[in-house]
Amino acid sequence: MFKQIIQTKGVSKMLFGIDTRNDDDWWIGVKAPDIRHLSKYESLMFQGNGYLGIRGALEERYLNEKRDMFVMGSFDKFQDEATELPNLPDIVNMEIQVDGKLLSLNHGIVTNYSRGLNLKNGEIVRSFDWQIEDIKLHFKFRRFVSMADCHLFVSKVEVTPLNRNIRLQIKSGIDGQQTNFGTQHFVESTKRLFNARFVQMQTHTQQSQVKFALTEYHRLFLDEEELSLNPHLEINRRQIFANYSVDLVKNQELVFIKYATVFSSTDKDLQKNVSEDSLIELKQVGRMDYQELLRQSSQVWDETIWNDCLVEISAHNNKPQIAVNFARYQLLANMPHDFGMNIGAKGMTGEGYKGHAFWDTEIFMLPFFMFNIPQFAQNLLIYRYLGLIGAKRKAHQGGYQGAQYPWEAAMPTDAESAPLWGNADIITGEPMKILSGSTEQHVTGDVAFGVTQYLKATNDQTFAKRMGYEIILQCAKFWASRITWNNEKNRYEITDVIGPDEYKEHASNDAFTNYMAHWCMKQGAEIISDLRQNDLRTYEKLNKKINLEKLFRSLILKSAMLYVPAPNADSVIPQDDDYLSYKKINIDKYKKTNKNFDIFKDFDLKQLDKLQVTKQADVLLLLLLFEDDFSKEVLDKNWDYYEPKTTHDSSLSFSSHAILANDLGLYNRAFDYFENSCQIDLGKNMDSSIMGLHMAGLAGVWKVVVEGFGGVRIDHDNLRIQPHIPKTWNYLRYSIIWQTKKLNILVTHRHFSIVADGRVKFIHQKRIYQLEPDERLTIEL
Amino acid sequence: MFKQIIQTKGVSKMLFGIDTRNDDDWWIGVKAPDIRHLSKYESLMFQGNGYLGIRGALEERYLNEKRDMFVMGSFDKFQDEATELPNLPDIVNMEIQVDGKLLSLNHGIVTNYSRGLNLKNGEIVRSFDWQIEDIKLHFKFRRFVSMADCHLFVSKVEVTPLNRNIRLQIKSGIDGQQTNFGTQHFVESTKRLFNARFVQMQTHTQQSQVKFALTEYHRLFLDEEELSLNPHLEINRRQIFANYSVDLVKNQELVFIKYATVFSSTDKDLQKNVSEDSLIELKQVGRMDYQELLRQSSQVWDETIWNDCLVEISAHNNKPQIAVNFARYQLLANMPHDFGMNIGAKGMTGEGYKGHAFWDTEIFMLPFFMFNIPQFAQNLLIYRYLGLIGAKRKAHQGGYQGAQYPWEAAMPTDAESAPLWGNADIITGEPMKILSGSTEQHVTGDVAFGVTQYLKATNDQTFAKRMGYEIILQCAKFWASRITWNNEKNRYEITDVIGPDEYKEHASNDAFTNYMAHWCMKQGAEIISDLRQNDLRTYEKLNKKINLEKLFRSLILKSAMLYVPAPNADSVIPQDDDYLSYKKINIDKYKKTNKNFDIFKDFDLKQLDKLQVTKQADVLLLLLLFEDDFSKEVLDKNWDYYEPKTTHDSSLSFSSHAILANDLGLYNRAFDYFENSCQIDLGKNMDSSIMGLHMAGLAGVWKVVVEGFGGVRIDHDNLRIQPHIPKTWNYLRYSIIWQTKKLNILVTHRHFSIVADGRVKFIHQKRIYQLEPDERLTIEL
Repeated sequence: MFKQIIQTKGVSKMLFGIDTRNDDDWWIGVKAPDIRHLSKYESLMFQGNGYLGIRGALEERYLNEKRDMFVMGSFDKFQDEATELPNLPDIVNMEIQVDGKLLSLNHGIVTNYSRGLNLKNGEIVRSFDWQIEDIKLHFKFRRFVSMADCHLFVSKVEVTPLNRNIRLQIKSGIDGQQTNFGTQHFVESTKRLFNARFVQMQTHTQQSQVKFALTEYHRLFLDEEELSLNPHLEINRRQIFANYSVDLVKNQELVFIKYATVFSSTDKDLQKNVSEDSLIELKQVGRMDYQELLRQSSQVWDETIWNDCLVEISAHNNKPQIAVNFARYQLLANMPHDFGMNIGAKGMTGEGYKGHAFWDTEIFMLPFFMFNIPQFAQNLLIYRYLGLIGAKRKAHQGGYQGAQYPWEAAMPTDAESAPLWGNADIITGEPMKILSGSTEQHVTGDVAFGVTQYLKATNDQTFAKRMGYEIILQCAKFWASRITWNNEKNRYEITDVIGPDEYKEHASNDAFTNYMAHWCMKQGAEIISDLRQNDLRTYEKLNKKINLEKLFRSLILKSAMLYVPAPNADSVIPQDDDYLSYKKINIDKYKKTNKNFDIFKDFDLKQLDKLQVTKQADVLLLLLLFEDDFSKEVLDKNWDYYEPKTTHDSSLSFSSHAILANDLGLYNRAFDYFENSCQIDLGKNMDSSIMGLHMAGLAGVWKVVVEGFGGVRIDHDNLRIQPHIPKTWNYLRYSIIWQTKKLNILVTHRHFSIVADGRVKFIHQKRIYQLEPDERLTIEL
Repeated sequence: MFKQIIQTKGVSKMLFGIDTRNDDDWWIGVKAPDIRHLSKYESLMFQGNGYLGIRGALEERYLNEKRDMFVMGSFDKFQDEATELPNLPDIVNMEIQVDGKLLSLNHGIVTNYSRGLNLKNGEIVRSFDWQIEDIKLHFKFRRFVSMADCHLFVSKVEVTPLNRNIRLQIKSGIDGQQTNFGTQHFVESTKRLFNARFVQMQTHTQQSQVKFALTEYHRLFLDEEELSLNPHLEINRRQIFANYSVDLVKNQELVFIKYATVFSSTDKDLQKNVSEDSLIELKQVGRMDYQELLRQSSQVWDETIWNDCLVEISAHNNKPQIAVNFARYQLLANMPHDFGMNIGAKGMTGEGYKGHAFWDTEIFMLPFFMFNIPQFAQNLLIYRYLGLIGAKRKAHQGGYQGAQYPWEAAMPTDAESAPLWGNADIITGEPMKILSGSTEQHVTGDVAFGVTQYLKATNDQTFAKRMGYEIILQCAKFWASRITWNNEKNRYEITDVIGPDEYKEHASNDAFTNYMAHWCMKQGAEIISDLRQNDLRTYEKLNKKINLEKLFRSLILKSAMLYVPAPNADSVIPQDDDYLSYKKINIDKYKKTNKNFDIFKDFDLKQLDKLQVTKQADVLLLLLLFEDDFSKEVLDKNWDYYEPKTTHDSSLSFSSHAILANDLGLYNRAFDYFENSCQIDLGKNMDSSIMGLHMAGLAGVWKVVVEGFGGVRIDHDNLRIQPHIPKTWNYLRYSIIWQTKKLNILVTHRHFSIVADGRVKFIHQKRIYQLEPDERLTIEL
């Protein structure tokens, strides 16, 4: 039912829980060691390239750290647990001893400390002076996960003794004693040395049998002169380390570089086998220096990402800009660069949600990718196409037809990956069943909705014909089999589901679900009708898989007779059959805290089930997604009704509220909700991100900026631009790609201007504008 | 081949690596916090009762700690790894916060620190004052594993704020994120609360399906008044914790007691099921106070152990006494109190050797138990009787007959539990094969030898007839099938084995192995002959399982024709066919260090295979075990030949050398070797015990004192007593049980006196003495 991780509501005024710089929009970090909040910073300083994901744990080990390294898509299932992304052996570790004294920020005196993540190229730089007893040293650590070579991680340390000669020992290697909070997914590995210099670990997952090879190579330079030094090998259970020992005289600088490669048997670029590929690759890159490899990686960030993805905010401070840079950095570092995989609710930034993907992808993350790097958006939808196998099985298991997408998705061929059991009930002491996997069904509408939005934004006919239509039709077929006939009321209904408001575990005619199902069936019917008239070849191809004629009749009939809750006399859409009859309570006090689930201190889930309290944007999200269908009055009335009743106990809630508030002219509220969005992970709640970042919340930051303040929306089949920026901002500049044309838009308080690299049509204030290539159009606001 | 753990050679002069007290022979501990050597102290301060074993990790967590809790006999096998004792969820943990500041010896100022283990009753007591910022507190921790109730662990904390009021938070629970150095043996557990107070975790091993329930109950007292306080529950993955929060005024004492029970589905005393039993038991003991439960446990230590197991040493300091107390404490804390289990080479004190038992049991540990608590010795041999199933399978797998005991034994029904692969070769980088499981075969003779020694010492006819003879006969049958005929030399031989000197991986006619095999076959023939004449009923019973007539003929023939290397012209017994032809080197420099395996810095295993260098007592151990068969001259000459060539790269080596040196009149050498024995674990080498204690080394300490200095030996079928104590000792007093009679012996430099509770015959200086009940006999030395 719930995603079981504490999330934050945030508090206003951009109080970040991590340091930033006034003169650098691309830096987050800490200016003093903070060992109490390791897990927060490990998540925030995540490094990844869509294949490899590494949490920002420090090189040296600390209690309560959570080292995680994941390879996208390498799911494994341990015994009866839900399948999850296995935590790989750690390659980041370095144990440094100075005259036998172990480097630790917990000991000695640390000065001039700084550690930061460069959001533009993903490099982490840490530097500090360390005094232990009578020894003073300067340390500088740098590292990155390469965006130019998905298998590559490079790390560099510079050490200079400042006041006397020392002996320095560095231990660096591969540590397979990591687990997923105690669960071990890997078999005991083969550990060995190649060419007296390359340490390698080979292992495989215990159930899914994905093979891995991790290889490390180290180079040492003393005053820029390379040392020819073979490591002293240390092999323990599930561990292999290379040990180096160097004598340094005062002011002499030692540079230590670690090159590491990670290969898996699921890699599409595999040449021979994981062990050889890993070694060959490492021998090649190991000849280049750190700076050159970083340059190659930065170039990919610039050329293929930042150049296509502009958001520039001029405001009274740079925190909004940093927030949207952070959001985009994380979305891109977690985005699979290949099809067949999806972004988990936490990406690869932590073990939360086990790497599983939810509706978060289509409803919250997809817009960012489809408007910026449509190829990535296509990858995500190909995952859903491959997922038809699992989704059909899930439908079949439930006695339904078509494709029912899993609430929690891991491998595309898996039917459902949601856990069945949650924690014990605090009152009875008994473990509680988690119902999401069985009854949180709207995801099947959401996937079809995402496909449709993508097709509108990109006009990607190839994808539509090869995969997109089939996804939508199979989803429609599911809904046609899922809805049930109510004899008394002479209509189809959808009973016993969980909608976006997960406080309600057995809702009937949940507005969001019914609208989605209704839209999906109608959309399916339209596609069939359209293909029959305009594209018989595709029609015939699909007809071999699905009886389209029969499906068409069923969709026309059932969509016409499915009950879709209309606004009542007060213009309020009832959230479900019973919601409006429940008791109302004042929830202001829960909304004021920056901790989630505070309401559970006073009510348990059974009680919340019978109160007019909503967990997150529900009817309001429906209104936002289907805004074309509703009048301003309905929007206003429902905002007034539901907003005060919403606790925002989900990171998905703020961004929708921010955009809707901006639409409704509630500009201060919109900005407050924008700030809340930014602070889900970046904010002062130090517990909010320990299990990983909220990827949909991050996508929400971009959404509020571009869809909200920037005013970008898909209106029927058209692009609509209706911007309004916050009063503290001077201007907002952003780019989007609309149907293969790149648009650059500048918004100020007085006007907005737009230029595109092709002919583009868009709507503003209900008027249609035609833009010629490279023509700049400026419109007064 | 090798047991892959670093062991120590120790250095002389009783330089303990742990503090002791001059006025307390039963205390070891530390007088200041030492976080660098956690693993050493965790092993030394092990607590156990033969069922439950818990390493002495501190309550609060530290980096590099190794929390281990084992239940005897609950082996599990993860994937392709060797079967091992799984590390259970931790019940020792306590996280304490004072006004939000986490208790850690790494922070604040710690004064008056003391932590010690009471060797008499297994209680650990730790007390200190802690100042953090402006807060001063006094802490006292106490805990024990009950010897009166094998399922019970009790822990108590007293906290007093010394200078102001504070808020104290205590988190205590069950943490299943523990692993065996990264390997997880348990499935994700069920975690729940009973009666709002009892936290329970249920889980089971992933392969062997052993079920466990661990339950905790907490009581709090403020100024001796019990607080009625339900915990705030915290449930994470594989974790359940109870949180308590109490306000303390200055000088007020809070007492926090944790009661924990552990039940497994293999328990022979199980009533209903692990969950209910665990809860019922806890509800019962939870009514008693800490002191009363400790008293019950101490009483069992006293009445059933210490009263039967006297060793009193009067010397110029109490370190020898502490060493032998420590050794006996650990032997008893690790001794299974039930049959069907064995003591691992590390007992339950660490993950080294995976809980597996070796020849260490019969050759080194068994004498301590059979001379002190014969019932325990019988338990160990019943394990071998049950092990006939696995041993027969192992013989069968190798193409042999009878029973071939595994080199590494886990479950008695397992054939062989030795790992097949070791670490990578440092030179080639390739993983190396471990041959011990296939070729270290003498263990099958050692088991039969142990049974015979036990039968002589106890005259336990019931065991002999029901199990003992069958073990020996099956071992003899194995040897008869194992030896091979050499046509050229017209004799049986044993080729390609590893003897005690594990540097030699392919020895032929290894003296130790051939003697053992020869003795075993002769012993088998004698048993058959004896039974046929004196006990036809047992003969017939055994004859149904083994064709005794056929076996008898085979044993007589083959023992007569098996080549047994005799002393050569120089009275030296060749260690194997080739040893004496190998090159000699001087190994003094390796013997002087207190690190093991130093010789591997200069030679690899292939080179050592061709050098006259011996890892541990080999021919010398043979001479000690079969001393009746050899002249003083042979003993002298072989000592002179082999002792200088022995590196003592095994903890099994020192004690045999000490006893033999004492026999040979080399009293200073004997004492040096005794000191080395004591320092294997207690010594200054802080790395020596991190994977657990050396149980056979500890047994060796007792052996040197009682068999060496005390002079106790089995001479053919008789007890022989030939004492000689070290010159720095005033006297030695000890007890043994000989054939059900308890003997008390006092040894001084001038004489020894002996008294028994029954009629006893013994040999001294080749003369037979008859002792009447309660008669004290004093013999001049």
